Amino acid sequence: MGEFELIRRFFAAAPCAQAAAGVALGVGDDCALLQPAAGEQLAISTDTLVAGVHFPESCDPFLLGQRALAVSASDLAAMGATPLAFTLALTLPAADEAWLEGFARGLDRMARGCGLALAGGDTTRGPLCLTLTVFGRVPAGQALTRAGARPGDLLCVGGSLGDGAGALPLVLGTAQAPAQAADYLLARYWSPQPQLALGEWLRGRASAALDISDGLLADCGHISRASKVAVHIDRERLPLSAALLDLHGREAALQHALSGGDDYRLAFSLPPALLAELRAAWPEVTVIGRVEAGEGVHLLDAGGGELRPPSAGYQHF
Amino acid sequence: MGEFELIRRFFAAAPCAQAAAGVALGVGDDCALLQPAAGEQLAISTDTLVAGVHFPESCDPFLLGQRALAVSASDLAAMGATPLAFTLALTLPAADEAWLEGFARGLDRMARGCGLALAGGDTTRGPLCLTLTVFGRVPAGQALTRAGARPGDLLCVGGSLGDGAGALPLVLGTAQAPAQAADYLLARYWSPQPQLALGEWLRGRASAALDISDGLLADCGHISRASKVAVHIDRERLPLSAALLDLHGREAALQHALSGGDDYRLAFSLPPALLAELRAAWPEVTVIGRVEAGEGVHLLDAGGGELRPPSAGYQHF
Repeated sequence: MGEFELIRRFFAAAPCAQAAAGVALGVGDDCALLQPAAGEQLAISTDTLVAGVHFPESCDPFLLGQRALAVSASDLAAMGATPLAFTLALTLPAADEAWLEGFARGLDRMARGCGLALAGGDTTRGPLCLTLTVFGRVPAGQALTRAGARPGDLLCVGGSLGDGAGALPLVLGTAQAPAQAADYLLARYWSPQPQLALGEWLRGRASAALDISDGLLADCGHISRASKVAVHIDRERLPLSAALLDLHGREAALQHALSGGDDYRLAFSLPPALLAELRAAWPEVTVIGRVEAGEGVHLLDAGGGELRPPSAGYQHF
Repeated sequence: MGEFELIRRFFAAAPCAQAAAGVALGVGDDCALLQPAAGEQLAISTDTLVAGVHFPESCDPFLLGQRALAVSASDLAAMGATPLAFTLALTLPAADEAWLEGFARGLDRMARGCGLALAGGDTTRGPLCLTLTVFGRVPAGQALTRAGARPGDLLCVGGSLGDGAGALPLVLGTAQAPAQAADYLLARYWSPQPQLALGEWLRGRASAALDISDGLLADCGHISRASKVAVHIDRERLPLSAALLDLHGREAALQHALSGGDDYRLAFSLPPALLAELRAAWPEVTVIGRVEAGEGVHLLDAGGGELRPPSAGYQHF
């Protein structure tokens, strides 16, 4: 099977690669052409997943396809961007048809769920590795960045923390859990749902935002540095899922919540005047701290005393 | 050295990553933000280069950085797009500072030569591999595609063919050549110059265009299928460099010109009424054939008789 046949069968024919609003030209030419509306900016993010580093080489290709796109789409959510399209650069040791069929199906499912059209890409031979680049639309000047958090703002997260890191022993097969907890955690790992609707709602409301991919402490450090503020986190307010607590106990669950990566929840700062509106629209959002003048990330116990933070987030090198 | 330190030192600090027109937000947030002008479309292309497949693992990182970006920028030229920005997804076995310094310098040199700003990316650990995604601006509806060639159009190429494939024995160290020929061919391989100015000139003039990356015959096949026309190539008119002829002789040089990849010259179809204007503006362009009603790619000898084409272009799988 040649490269063009492979692209035609598994990707160009996928439902997510068909005509889509905002995509003037899709798969099959030297470039794809995107058409943002007047006054819109294009938000762009690139993420690579490497076999044996970011996922087990033998994992289910359907799940991998879902997860790979979700991880990238989460960056669009973090900017408050409306999903538009993506490109896929897929490096494969061989053209394994069963693998490609499963991968393309998982990718297509997440793409359609997120409203992302496959607009182009590249397929090459080599060690299994994939790079997705996602594109979203956002009205000029309204994107959510990491800069802009102000003293007095509330620090909020879009849902339970630590599930991604807490699921790893199940993903790797080194631990077992009761079916209900295992199902929940494996779903959080393999098909995290990018918080796209929350991100769009936060446009014009949140003062800073990002998605938690490196771990809460490390990611709050990004907000702290970009906004030149101190971020205070109340450890007792961190939302932990029942499944995470069941499998790991409270101390390890907190450690995963603080330093585990792969949560893909939004973390954001919000002026306190908007709290009632937030609670009404997004009951799953939890206030976990506040922004103060100063610098750094500070972890507080129930009495407001500062705790020594555990080790930092995931280090790639 | 952590991922963020690596990005800061070698990429975010590079001249090509500094503030650029059309880039509203660059390296360092969840997404970059591009700002095309009203009425413009965004042309996007993604290419992956894998060590041991697309380049020798031990090659000079400066040359690799130059070449990687040139290969991608050539796709913008093929659409007639004006370069805007790019993202880099770099997978490395280890954070080798000397390698990174050289690679970033080569990338930066080509980026500034092409007018491409580094807007974001990802760095990961794994087998050496890089994926570049390039972005260009083009007035809506004016991009050059592979469809649109009409019977009667001239078939043209932007310069000598076969140099990329002909340089391979020198790149791999399996052959030697006199210094002048070697210098020329190695430069064609390691720093092909994307024909960006030619591509922009062809907007509104050429009826179809692409860049020659899979080999002339294979790439003309793309035009033939997309435009639903026959493409006739006069073998005797193929432009061959003196260096290519010196190193390989005429028969092998022709074979490289027809089936070798990696030329990164534009091939395009042009209404014959524009020939004088083309010759005046672009003396290095050669007319190598014509578009006819029908289908397929036809290779003709000096007398107009059809030749059996040699094997097709590069097959990735």
